[in-house]
Amino acid sequence: MNMYEIISKTKRGIELTAEEIKLMVDGYVKKEIPDYQMSAWLMAVCFKSLTQKETLALTEAMRDSGDLVDLTGISTVTVDKHSTGGVGDKTSLIIGPVVAACGVSVPKMSGKGLGHTGGTIDKLESIPGCKTQIPFEQFIDHINKTGFSIVSQSGNLVPADKLLYALRDVTATVDSIPLICSSIMSKKLAMGADCILLDVKMGSGAFMKNTEDACSLAELMVSVGKNAGKKCMAVVTDMDIPLGKAIGNTLEVIEATEILKGNDKGRLYELCMELSAYMLVLAGKGTKDECRKLAQEAIVSGKALEVFKRSVMQQGGDTAFIDDYGMIDKATLRREVYSLSDGYIVKMDSEVIGRASLALGAGRVTKESSIDYTAGIMLEKEYGDYVKKGEKLMTLITSSDCDIEDIAGKLIETIEISENKPQERPVIIKTVG
Amino acid sequence: MNMYEIISKTKRGIELTAEEIKLMVDGYVKKEIPDYQMSAWLMAVCFKSLTQKETLALTEAMRDSGDLVDLTGISTVTVDKHSTGGVGDKTSLIIGPVVAACGVSVPKMSGKGLGHTGGTIDKLESIPGCKTQIPFEQFIDHINKTGFSIVSQSGNLVPADKLLYALRDVTATVDSIPLICSSIMSKKLAMGADCILLDVKMGSGAFMKNTEDACSLAELMVSVGKNAGKKCMAVVTDMDIPLGKAIGNTLEVIEATEILKGNDKGRLYELCMELSAYMLVLAGKGTKDECRKLAQEAIVSGKALEVFKRSVMQQGGDTAFIDDYGMIDKATLRREVYSLSDGYIVKMDSEVIGRASLALGAGRVTKESSIDYTAGIMLEKEYGDYVKKGEKLMTLITSSDCDIEDIAGKLIETIEISENKPQERPVIIKTVG
Repeated sequence: MNMYEIISKTKRGIELTAEEIKLMVDGYVKKEIPDYQMSAWLMAVCFKSLTQKETLALTEAMRDSGDLVDLTGISTVTVDKHSTGGVGDKTSLIIGPVVAACGVSVPKMSGKGLGHTGGTIDKLESIPGCKTQIPFEQFIDHINKTGFSIVSQSGNLVPADKLLYALRDVTATVDSIPLICSSIMSKKLAMGADCILLDVKMGSGAFMKNTEDACSLAELMVSVGKNAGKKCMAVVTDMDIPLGKAIGNTLEVIEATEILKGNDKGRLYELCMELSAYMLVLAGKGTKDECRKLAQEAIVSGKALEVFKRSVMQQGGDTAFIDDYGMIDKATLRREVYSLSDGYIVKMDSEVIGRASLALGAGRVTKESSIDYTAGIMLEKEYGDYVKKGEKLMTLITSSDCDIEDIAGKLIETIEISENKPQERPVIIKTVG
Repeated sequence: MNMYEIISKTKRGIELTAEEIKLMVDGYVKKEIPDYQMSAWLMAVCFKSLTQKETLALTEAMRDSGDLVDLTGISTVTVDKHSTGGVGDKTSLIIGPVVAACGVSVPKMSGKGLGHTGGTIDKLESIPGCKTQIPFEQFIDHINKTGFSIVSQSGNLVPADKLLYALRDVTATVDSIPLICSSIMSKKLAMGADCILLDVKMGSGAFMKNTEDACSLAELMVSVGKNAGKKCMAVVTDMDIPLGKAIGNTLEVIEATEILKGNDKGRLYELCMELSAYMLVLAGKGTKDECRKLAQEAIVSGKALEVFKRSVMQQGGDTAFIDDYGMIDKATLRREVYSLSDGYIVKMDSEVIGRASLALGAGRVTKESSIDYTAGIMLEKEYGDYVKKGEKLMTLITSSDCDIEDIAGKLIETIEISENKPQERPVIIKTVG
């Protein structure tokens, strides 16, 4: 194996063999291939892309670079879900309990958030006492008892992705669809669930800024998942506007609880029902319509809320907040933001709101930053709503030392109000697989 | 300066400022910018290219990364010539003396050969006693006495090129026209001659395989040279067929001597007269026609041969070979190659012949290889010649341990003979500047 030849082939658009890709990934993890050759190859991939076959080989080689999670101790079929990350995306906290309530296990290993997109682990850890670093045997035991658990990634899972991602991050080679696909799918495959549902976020708050790229990524991931022996589907969903009304850890836990209680049937609920239905379809629980009904019943019956409660409890969390949000909703400063004119909200940019939430203390600027769990934004009005001048649009919330007036001032500037009612935005743009 | 931003800009096709390029080159030489970022940038350049302005900035930043040669001690106008490298290219040994005989100094610093293209330094060093590592003051003194000297590059000239070339060589990023331009021109500019003539070789034996690329490189180099304050021209010349009849160090020295004696007026002589004429035009010696006549007279009068003889002598070389080629032409093994059929020679591939010569011992496979000066190939017939079956085509010559039968067998397979006379190939394809 000659790394020079591999770079040269990709540069000229010649397909690499699975063996070449495997030797390259293994050689890189073993430090036999230097960073400067790998970064040249990554840049060539940004320009020439990879074929489906190459992407599968890359994903499998990355998956096999470290430990594989053994989920054989779980008694039911298992479904994993992955979101490419967005603003206000608390779906995992909702659909995990919903799907588990329908008899399908949802073993999730998740990462911490970085930048303006939040991490599910941070949301869970905002619940007093709730731990996410849990011994593996206990994780399996929790799943077998409640059907649902979210823990922090541990062990030497997919070291090739850690190394490659760190290199891509400093060489401007992140934005390649096959590289994004192999990064996500190598981890999903290593995590060992029988079925995988992929939620590809599209729009301002997401990594994929247009429908074409989001659909290409979704199709490539589904093809890789299926060829690697998994039941796999993807949905491309809208992230031009934030998902739900709450952005920020504690605020999102409360919103998720409200959905699980059946008190909120908006856009977030709709997406959760759809995602849950697809997860149940993958798990063989029936047709899409049947599965959607199962999911709705899990809310109505209170079973999903019960799973959520037991899951938090078994991870050491205090579940009293479920009946008393004030227990966790303890921010010291709230600043309301009002509309500057009459009209329809035609733009309430997801990325801008995510960044404002980050500035309020809700996220990490660097990996070492600490989080203000109480901080975030509560939206009172959404895209498409009609508002009067002076009407409340949102509340900025924080307990941290930040310039809340400045954040509010910048945010209000980016909200666009128009006389004309904007088009409705379906939350699900496309289904793949 | 942020190297990430620079990579990202080039990747997106956004022009870098001269300042950004300068900071990048300086940072790389100082090891502040890691190889893995530089190689990603180089690969992005291979795909997106650089503008003329960026290429000039890169070339000047590279030039300024080390010492600059000070030629102010030379009393006449100075002309440098650079060939992008080919098979059998001994023009420097001929045109240097011709131009010097016309009153223009030709101070040349040259490199050793690597691979199938020979180096002028190796050709000179094949003359018994001839040294090319000479103190700088003595080099200037030689030029002032004879007008011509070729020495090995010394000092810390263009360290940025050494570092960048070594990185390009292992990351498949050599074949980018602006990168090739900046590598060549940074060295030519650092060498300080008033005028620069560039001989861009095109065809099988050369780096540029097609006319379009060769012309682009020629135009870019001339634009950079002029914008950096030099008188500059380029000629694109044919390298699909070897230049002259001799390939190999001693053999080429003998062939150059024959041209200087006026005994050979073929294709090589023609190219040398043209190149010499353009060098004299750059030096202000008259019109192209006038300069061509000056060059021819330098041969006829014996003045060019005299310059060559004195130049070899002052570098310590024994000039007895000029009257007795047997003194240096001492190979121990000769193997003749005969035509397999009647017809015109329509293909006698320059690269194939270069590689055969390398296999006979005439070149270096790695930088550490030693050279068999006597080894090489003497062509008896050229492209376009009519040959009879069994007629001698060439002689393979070596004093080294090599499988001469195997080399001969492979070579004969690549020569194409046809009933139809092929088109004539002009040696000069285009003039730029």
